[in-house]
Amino acid sequence: MTTSPFLQALRGVRGDTLPVWFMRQAGRSLPEYRRARAGTTMLESCLDPALAAELTCQPVRRHGVDAAVFFSDIMVPLKLAGVDVEIALGVGPVMGAPTRTDAEIAQLCGRGSGDQSVITDGVALTVRELGDTTPVLGFAGAPFTLAAYLVEGRPSRDHLAARTLMHANPAGWQRLANWCADVSVAFMKAQVAGGARAFQLFDSWAGSLSRADYAKYCAPSSRKVLRAAHDLGIPTIHFGVGTGCMLDLFSEDATAVGVDYRTDLRTAISVLRSVHSEPVIVQGNIDPAMLGCPPEVLEAHINTVITAGRNADAHILNLGHGVPKDTDPDVLTRLVARVHERTAND
Amino acid sequence: MTTSPFLQALRGVRGDTLPVWFMRQAGRSLPEYRRARAGTTMLESCLDPALAAELTCQPVRRHGVDAAVFFSDIMVPLKLAGVDVEIALGVGPVMGAPTRTDAEIAQLCGRGSGDQSVITDGVALTVRELGDTTPVLGFAGAPFTLAAYLVEGRPSRDHLAARTLMHANPAGWQRLANWCADVSVAFMKAQVAGGARAFQLFDSWAGSLSRADYAKYCAPSSRKVLRAAHDLGIPTIHFGVGTGCMLDLFSEDATAVGVDYRTDLRTAISVLRSVHSEPVIVQGNIDPAMLGCPPEVLEAHINTVITAGRNADAHILNLGHGVPKDTDPDVLTRLVARVHERTAND
Repeated sequence: MTTSPFLQALRGVRGDTLPVWFMRQAGRSLPEYRRARAGTTMLESCLDPALAAELTCQPVRRHGVDAAVFFSDIMVPLKLAGVDVEIALGVGPVMGAPTRTDAEIAQLCGRGSGDQSVITDGVALTVRELGDTTPVLGFAGAPFTLAAYLVEGRPSRDHLAARTLMHANPAGWQRLANWCADVSVAFMKAQVAGGARAFQLFDSWAGSLSRADYAKYCAPSSRKVLRAAHDLGIPTIHFGVGTGCMLDLFSEDATAVGVDYRTDLRTAISVLRSVHSEPVIVQGNIDPAMLGCPPEVLEAHINTVITAGRNADAHILNLGHGVPKDTDPDVLTRLVARVHERTAND
Repeated sequence: MTTSPFLQALRGVRGDTLPVWFMRQAGRSLPEYRRARAGTTMLESCLDPALAAELTCQPVRRHGVDAAVFFSDIMVPLKLAGVDVEIALGVGPVMGAPTRTDAEIAQLCGRGSGDQSVITDGVALTVRELGDTTPVLGFAGAPFTLAAYLVEGRPSRDHLAARTLMHANPAGWQRLANWCADVSVAFMKAQVAGGARAFQLFDSWAGSLSRADYAKYCAPSSRKVLRAAHDLGIPTIHFGVGTGCMLDLFSEDATAVGVDYRTDLRTAISVLRSVHSEPVIVQGNIDPAMLGCPPEVLEAHINTVITAGRNADAHILNLGHGVPKDTDPDVLTRLVARVHERTAND
């Protein structure tokens, strides 16, 4: 396991092979995923350890990626805490009721994290199958993203109600964000207990915030989750969407920063180098839109990303957002092969 | 009209009154709007000159704003060009079929802009009602945003198909973006012919682009629209959402830059001052999420925005995105009164 190029990169070490994996690699782009998931809802699949392990391993078997991100959903810790949440097909997470008033926040925050043993079991089954060849990456949703779903009650574009709450009732917001951090920590620990060797915090909606609001109302609870992983000796990757103007804040308390496709990787590395004395470790940032382009266009784009990544102390190749659901999986398989072949001979 | 604080600001002149208007001020937040619109679809309302004029005037009568943005929709020029588009309730613009292949692009681009007389008539009726007191602001959607709707066929989060097209088929993309610029120019000219005194270009989706992609694939067609207005002697405001990292590009060929709520206004002004010798004129950027906050929180936020705006040569106060549909209209009325009262005594 010590020779895993993915874990090496998270120690700031550049090995012979550039590690590569894909956000949302376990998912609808794979026919074997669609077959295995048939007849089960998203949350049922996440709560079935054998199925979650199978779905986690599928992209490793097919593509030969360097990390196995555990198949789950950022809503799972809310479900395990007893929150009334479902993932509606074609819509996304939908709550039984939004959490907005002090009374609603108090009721929610009275909940414990619940029994996470199905998560630990799912990760342990995955580790048993993959052995020492491919490390399992745990993950959780960042407190702002979880809280935004809880306050809005469903997906929204601007997260207006959540952003209003943080200004209108800062104490209530802080309580809510802190509770979200606690359930994400519990979810992280359950994955680590099963054998996860690294952890990624996803802040899908942070790009709807101003830098000042992120720093004041959201960064503290995200850092709480990152620090909890760090305290367990687990390296962390912190990824946000549309957060190019606050990568320095995203790098605080994180081992590596995930860079989205909108942000120039070379610029991101310069910014990180200017604010940190530690090794600069980045993950990203192939534009998912390029996966549908002719091979020579995709190849040129990947070359640009790899070349930019050489300015960092270590680089984990990934997309700059999740795998689109109608991606041709062969494109991803060939991409992994080309990256492994090239960096070994390069 | 020469004393309009809005038009003065667009000449870089700071008058006694800070001009204020709201993006999407004519809309669902007003009960008189919901009454007037009852029984008509969005596009029918836009194509009825008397109704469009009435809806344009409503927020001027109610709030006393300093500019009357013409009631219409960025999809109207596509409809007038004969494109099969409807605005589905709760969904947004939906095309009969997406435009993706060269053949589909060629078919679309064979269309002329169509008869725009209902637009000119609607603006003229508005100008007749408002007289010299409140100038009418015309607008259009930026070519990228229009093209993204055409390629996707409906609203999407990441505009993947559109962004794939620009890389996979740059010539086809350029033809499409250029055609979108042409229909936006026709729409702008129709509004100017009716008496519009200024023009805003809206790029709602530009924030889904990297800076490099915006510069290469989208900025040229947007500049074509801005220059066409400039050639008519019409001052322009260029507004994008999530475009804080490319405000310098947004300011090219624009009289003023609209700053979204995510971007710190003071920082935006510094960036613009560092790249331009012309007067720095900004519009924005009250966070719409603040409209639902207690009065003292909103007041403090508005003070911060006004203070930041003093670093520009001129400032048009506005939201940093559109009026949310469930905004209490009295909050907006009071906001306008407070701004007018304060800046006159300040």
